[in-house]
Amino acid sequence: MESQTTTFPVTPRTRIRRMPARGTHDRAEIHAILDAGLVCHVGLVDDGQPVVIPMAYARVGDDLVLHGARASRLLRAAGAGAPVCCAVTLLDGLVLARSAFHHSVNYRSVVVYGRGQAVEEPERKAALLDAFTARIAPGRPDPPRPANAKELAATLVVRVPLVEAVAKRRSGPPLDDAGDMGLAVWAGVVPLHVVAGPVVPDAGCLPGTTPPAVHWPHIR
Amino acid sequence: MESQTTTFPVTPRTRIRRMPARGTHDRAEIHAILDAGLVCHVGLVDDGQPVVIPMAYARVGDDLVLHGARASRLLRAAGAGAPVCCAVTLLDGLVLARSAFHHSVNYRSVVVYGRGQAVEEPERKAALLDAFTARIAPGRPDPPRPANAKELAATLVVRVPLVEAVAKRRSGPPLDDAGDMGLAVWAGVVPLHVVAGPVVPDAGCLPGTTPPAVHWPHIR
Repeated sequence: MESQTTTFPVTPRTRIRRMPARGTHDRAEIHAILDAGLVCHVGLVDDGQPVVIPMAYARVGDDLVLHGARASRLLRAAGAGAPVCCAVTLLDGLVLARSAFHHSVNYRSVVVYGRGQAVEEPERKAALLDAFTARIAPGRPDPPRPANAKELAATLVVRVPLVEAVAKRRSGPPLDDAGDMGLAVWAGVVPLHVVAGPVVPDAGCLPGTTPPAVHWPHIR
Repeated sequence: MESQTTTFPVTPRTRIRRMPARGTHDRAEIHAILDAGLVCHVGLVDDGQPVVIPMAYARVGDDLVLHGARASRLLRAAGAGAPVCCAVTLLDGLVLARSAFHHSVNYRSVVVYGRGQAVEEPERKAALLDAFTARIAPGRPDPPRPANAKELAATLVVRVPLVEAVAKRRSGPPLDDAGDMGLAVWAGVVPLHVVAGPVVPDAGCLPGTTPPAVHWPHIR
């Protein structure tokens, strides 16, 4: 369900302290970055120690949705309401400056603070899992077999409501000091892109089945 | 300094519990994954809450090296020995199965648990910062101006010794159930690659300066 406000509230931990021009709490921009990524890094506190786990995710409305094996102790903790911090980072380019100090990277990132909630209601759970497969292969002509009862039971779905969220991004050229502009050092940006394909059909693939289009919305 | 052992020790938190075949503590493989990535996600505990920060990094010997503004409170905490968990994840492909349940991703990841140490000794610090710029642009013909005293003072370099580290990876085709092999659903892998370029010279770039080669070792 989409909320009506256009920005997420600024809280002590989502306030941008350094280089505020690089930060935003704009809901549409945060959604767009989340929709462009495929992997998030989920931070939890486990017995007082930090743990970071890479996970696939989907954004559905104002929820960041995680899933995994119910056997995972840390995912169960997240589903039981343990505080989590989820970060999504897209690397857009390397920024080469005339000075070592002003080297940088172009990127878009989102950090979400919150508490997870396990989704156990069967229809809602199945719908959220559909969002995962639809996201990985949006243009797929033949839908895969849906999860059966045993598979659903083995899978834990956890939603993290987007309540405290902040985005940061850098784009554009290097920002060198005026005194360095005369140096004979190449400066500029090396853009990085994720590209997909060519697809590799599974050995047992039936004739007549069609691979999905390789133009994922999240791949530029 | 390279250690003499070929594997990192298995500890309670680096023991692979699920799908052990996907995990390894092999030092060379962990080094190779770290050398292929550009961004790590650093987890810390801040006032009891998890925080995850995306950061550039370099591997130098058996250290994961972070850097940033000394003004960053969390980086200072890491440099003062707060426990950290650093994760590096490389997404290699989307795995489309005949069933929703067996969808997966191909990836390589490393998780490092440890405590950071600020590096203040000037020569060592400068050498570690050189590793960052060399890593971003290894084939650069004209070296950038090194950091001056003021820039060095504003920069905090934190090394996280690789003591507890574990890698996980998945590659290859989908692993469907035998009963699903007759389904008329395309199955296979959509490989993902990071590609670089074309380079964008900065507007003020002097004639005669040469952009670096676009064949980064960490880009396939």
